[in-house]
Amino acid sequence: MKIKAGIMGATGYVGSELVRILYHHPEVEINVLTSKHHSNQRYNSIYTNFSKICEMKCDENDLDSVINQLDIIFLSLPHGITSNLLTEKTLKNVKIIDLSADFRLKSMEEYEEWYDIKHNNINLLNRAVYGLSEWKREKICSSRLIANPGCYPTCALLCLLPLIKEEILEEDYIIIDAKSGVSGAGRSLNLGTHFSECNESTKAYNVASHRHTPEIEQQLSEINRKKISVTFTAHLLPMNRGILCTSYGNLKKAYNYDDIKKIYEKYYHDEFFIRLMGKNIFPETKWVKGSNYCDIGFSIDTRTDRIIVIGAIDNLIKGAAGQAVQNMNLMFNLEENMGLNSIPMFPV
Amino acid sequence: MKIKAGIMGATGYVGSELVRILYHHPEVEINVLTSKHHSNQRYNSIYTNFSKICEMKCDENDLDSVINQLDIIFLSLPHGITSNLLTEKTLKNVKIIDLSADFRLKSMEEYEEWYDIKHNNINLLNRAVYGLSEWKREKICSSRLIANPGCYPTCALLCLLPLIKEEILEEDYIIIDAKSGVSGAGRSLNLGTHFSECNESTKAYNVASHRHTPEIEQQLSEINRKKISVTFTAHLLPMNRGILCTSYGNLKKAYNYDDIKKIYEKYYHDEFFIRLMGKNIFPETKWVKGSNYCDIGFSIDTRTDRIIVIGAIDNLIKGAAGQAVQNMNLMFNLEENMGLNSIPMFPV
Amino acid sequence: MKIKAGIMGATGYVGSELVRILYHHPEVEINVLTSKHHSNQRYNSIYTNFSKICEMKCDENDLDSVINQLDIIFLSLPHGITSNLLTEKTLKNVKIIDLSADFRLKSMEEYEEWYDIKHNNINLLNRAVYGLSEWKREKICSSRLIANPGCYPTCALLCLLPLIKEEILEEDYIIIDAKSGVSGAGRSLNLGTHFSECNESTKAYNVASHRHTPEIEQQLSEINRKKISVTFTAHLLPMNRGILCTSYGNLKKAYNYDDIKKIYEKYYHDEFFIRLMGKNIFPETKWVKGSNYCDIGFSIDTRTDRIIVIGAIDNLIKGAAGQAVQNMNLMFNLEENMGLNSIPMFPV
Amino acid sequence: MKIKAGIMGATGYVGSELVRILYHHPEVEINVLTSKHHSNQRYNSIYTNFSKICEMKCDENDLDSVINQLDIIFLSLPHGITSNLLTEKTLKNVKIIDLSADFRLKSMEEYEEWYDIKHNNINLLNRAVYGLSEWKREKICSSRLIANPGCYPTCALLCLLPLIKEEILEEDYIIIDAKSGVSGAGRSLNLGTHFSECNESTKAYNVASHRHTPEIEQQLSEINRKKISVTFTAHLLPMNRGILCTSYGNLKKAYNYDDIKKIYEKYYHDEFFIRLMGKNIFPETKWVKGSNYCDIGFSIDTRTDRIIVIGAIDNLIKGAAGQAVQNMNLMFNLEENMGLNSIPMFPV
Repeated sequence: MKIKAGIMGATGYVGSELVRILYHHPEVEINVLTSKHHSNQRYNSIYTNFSKICEMKCDENDLDSVINQLDIIFLSLPHGITSNLLTEKTLKNVKIIDLSADFRLKSMEEYEEWYDIKHNNINLLNRAVYGLSEWKREKICSSRLIANPGCYPTCALLCLLPLIKEEILEEDYIIIDAKSGVSGAGRSLNLGTHFSECNESTKAYNVASHRHTPEIEQQLSEINRKKISVTFTAHLLPMNRGILCTSYGNLKKAYNYDDIKKIYEKYYHDEFFIRLMGKNIFPETKWVKGSNYCDIGFSIDTRTDRIIVIGAIDNLIKGAAGQAVQNMNLMFNLEENMGLNSIPMFPV
Repeated sequence: MKIKAGIMGATGYVGSELVRILYHHPEVEINVLTSKHHSNQRYNSIYTNFSKICEMKCDENDLDSVINQLDIIFLSLPHGITSNLLTEKTLKNVKIIDLSADFRLKSMEEYEEWYDIKHNNINLLNRAVYGLSEWKREKICSSRLIANPGCYPTCALLCLLPLIKEEILEEDYIIIDAKSGVSGAGRSLNLGTHFSECNESTKAYNVASHRHTPEIEQQLSEINRKKISVTFTAHLLPMNRGILCTSYGNLKKAYNYDDIKKIYEKYYHDEFFIRLMGKNIFPETKWVKGSNYCDIGFSIDTRTDRIIVIGAIDNLIKGAAGQAVQNMNLMFNLEENMGLNSIPMFPV
Repeated sequence: MKIKAGIMGATGYVGSELVRILYHHPEVEINVLTSKHHSNQRYNSIYTNFSKICEMKCDENDLDSVINQLDIIFLSLPHGITSNLLTEKTLKNVKIIDLSADFRLKSMEEYEEWYDIKHNNINLLNRAVYGLSEWKREKICSSRLIANPGCYPTCALLCLLPLIKEEILEEDYIIIDAKSGVSGAGRSLNLGTHFSECNESTKAYNVASHRHTPEIEQQLSEINRKKISVTFTAHLLPMNRGILCTSYGNLKKAYNYDDIKKIYEKYYHDEFFIRLMGKNIFPETKWVKGSNYCDIGFSIDTRTDRIIVIGAIDNLIKGAAGQAVQNMNLMFNLEENMGLNSIPMFPV
Repeated sequence: MKIKAGIMGATGYVGSELVRILYHHPEVEINVLTSKHHSNQRYNSIYTNFSKICEMKCDENDLDSVINQLDIIFLSLPHGITSNLLTEKTLKNVKIIDLSADFRLKSMEEYEEWYDIKHNNINLLNRAVYGLSEWKREKICSSRLIANPGCYPTCALLCLLPLIKEEILEEDYIIIDAKSGVSGAGRSLNLGTHFSECNESTKAYNVASHRHTPEIEQQLSEINRKKISVTFTAHLLPMNRGILCTSYGNLKKAYNYDDIKKIYEKYYHDEFFIRLMGKNIFPETKWVKGSNYCDIGFSIDTRTDRIIVIGAIDNLIKGAAGQAVQNMNLMFNLEENMGLNSIPMFPV
């Protein structure tokens, strides 16, 4: 019998990728789609790509009315909603993967400071597992509440965690310069994502104040229980999809390429979704588009004993919907890459 | 036992889509990839999206050396090569889907006039079946040599054939204004497809002389054995993928929307890959990207008794590699949509 | 003494181009900028490109309060406003160039039918001159109220008028297939112009119902006082600027290239802003970007005795703000190209 | 009498911007254009935007034959040519602005190491002035040989020099993460700048080995005669024009926003081409496109006592042709912004 899945917030971009991926998933049937703005409309009337494929109607965003029909719910809602929505009782009935930020930060104070939203659900916060699949596999398998990572943190953490874990970087000198396509900003209208405003231009945004900063720091700090602060800057690029994350760290001593390569191999050699590039080959977002891969390459600037690590993901897949499904596979004891082995499409 | 497939010319954009689609095909194994410029290189070194997926080496473009290992060969080579390469004997050994133009035009004279290349293979020309899957299904099933249609003709013909078949258009007044993404021009370097030259601009090209014109005319004329000439204009658009085809025809009498809708339903209601849009909904290339669908919508300009039909396809899929695999499915008696049911990806 | 100019609706894209062009104009000083949504804000806070250049504050959209300080007002407001706003008295005080559609159609019935807005200003409608500069020069010079043409009509008419005037086309078979960049849709937020929705895609819109249709027909019909209907289809392209207009007409007899070339030379040889391309050279929008030029090329499809005319303009300049300034130059007896001789910028 | 100017290498993108800007320059006449690949062709046949504007023929790239007709020559040739081409005698006859890298690095060894080209012209190397206009104004005025800065160094240096000069940054921890549009790669064909390869994707390139690194270091080190090494990473963005440069530096002590603002004001308050953004406003490449401006904004990451400085330029203008003309103005004692006061065009 197939896993009965529901998607709340199915009509955002991440929601629509969840629908697309789960439709192809051999062990899942989508039973419920909900939408705040499009309830009672057919899904294919909102996303014409689903014509003749998904003609389900969207329900309203009402958790109670759908919870009993489902084994798992993907919550793709704005920040600040799920922490009020979910209870212990919810988790008794259904597994939850929350794609908002509500359960990502372990510290309520930090959440409230960076998101400027009150958080009243310390119980579930303690139960939630941060769903960075490759690093939290065991906990994810036994959890009923996953806080699915942010798009930038996913890419940055996959690049940096091996180096931090091995303690080869100076802890107080990490800089992450990230670049994202516009789909990361979602489907809500905004002057900044109006075509003529962001086409053929680039900019940094939320400089020194991006909410993904504490999320990255929390995970980097946790791995060795050593406080790590980073400078994180996000940039908007005139393309639909993809995140490229360029991270800079000072090496504690003069490591060479092979030293570092061995570290990455140690952690990622057997990881299906992580592809380590060869020497002098660097990730490009086009090579991961449409897939759940994270490509990683690096170079050592021997003049400054600094490492430059570059990672690329599809922000809507490994950075959101794909990793959520990967986590679902773990939670239901399925092959981790089930429904997720699409080859990146190029050129697209 | 799986179908053993080879792809000659595997390192062009169409070739790489063939590799991607056939990799996902449950009844196919790819045994041979050939390349003129990249022989002896690993496929993933040419297309990094295939890292950890396809690490096969490319062979040289030598038909004889690969023919015995294969059940089917996809030929994705420049025009003028396959007509010299293929013989009756080839077809005894292997089924062929030729993605070049060499066997599309039934008249050698016409081929030589439009392509300015000598054609010496009248025998195979007579055996070749024009692979417009929805309209030549029966012949394709029993053929060993398919001339896979051009990208523009695929879209234009799927839009126009029902109207021509039903003889509701004035035969001498058909205009096809087509728009294509740049991937249709292939991977060979050219000033016209240099990024800064075609980004943020549009132009018509090969005006009144595009080689897809006689291909369209041949098929439109054949359906009722009545000579039809068209004006066809191709335009280059600053995007990677997609063809949008806007066709104009004079209605012989004052048909209304429902009359025409019935005609399209008659021919396409049961077609998996053709999606008829609802009233006042028109195709957009984004809704078919990454899929083998052809979306069709139309409107009647009652002021002029003219019909405007709009079709959209992914030029590399329904316009090339996807339709080729659809034809292979027919030739091997498989489900026609096997390996081809990807949902269009959006936004991508 | 310089011409005192005001721009109402200065914070839309056309408004901002008016500001930019008039700032460079040697005989103009901008005295007033108004804005509905940004009144009391500095212009450079809305359009950062004007930092250190234009730090004027925007006033409210109140004609009465600004009229006495000005010699000319450019009205860049939504349709349906200026016909109520302007009176005979207004025109006594100031010259007006209206960039909305309110005074373009000579027939109030037609206006009301296509725009679905009541029109109550028949007096001024009769006084207004349609500001297609190259064809209405004399009337523009002596007018105080200009209805500045729409972007598509500007391009289509400049391409077609010489052929219509010379009566070489079958009047009932003209098709105009036009393609526009997204800036033509303005700065107002809309799902259709959200970056991820229109990037990497194309579509037709307002099929068989675009409001520029009657505007084109009116002008084509007027030239020889012979009713002409056209089919006009607009397409949205994933680029910021530029209109490419591909027009198809049936030739009454078998004209050759030189015949037609002579016709275009007759009307346009001395026109500063019209550039006739050489044989087999066709306009591309990139070559006119940032300029007031209209490039025109054509080909004769001898197989069908049809002419294909292709025109390219910058939709915000020759299609709006540039032509408005050209008209102002005519109205004030200045050199027609004053302030308008920027070389098209490429690549941009 | 006007300055007689020649442009060698006039058919590259930088060359074409030189032609465009100098055409508008009131004190210059262009007497010679040369081109390796397009000699004897009309300029407008290579760049159609110059139709009816510049119909001059290109000469061959032969310095001797043109030198006597000219007051100044702009050399827009590949690296490694001008160091062999120029002599003391050349400079007696004509002023030179070299847009290649040949005279930028003061150390021949460094040049040979990073460019892998032999340099045989130590004499002229010593005479050449690095043409960063705002910082070398005095020397430029009296020089006859200008080494026009690279695009990335221009942007990075304008952002960093005030901070370095004031010695507020830790010298060994400067990171520059730069992003450029594709026009920076020039007009030569290359798979990496083929439309479908770089559209909708981003990548880092020449990681830890980009040739602009020593150029930046030389200038930063020179200002206080203190050796400064930087990590510089260049990224390619899917857009035509623009450079955005994000620089990271560790503050020696806890400066606040106003402290830093004062420093920038001190150096740039009177600079025409430098625009300091207000607090929490950051440069975007669109706001400088088509202009010679450099926009600069910054933020202090108080959590890490780090400064993030962001600069934006038009790579072909302030990063190449525009700054060259600015330098010419200085060399000929003209207003520094003559011919360079175009307002940035938006949206374009």
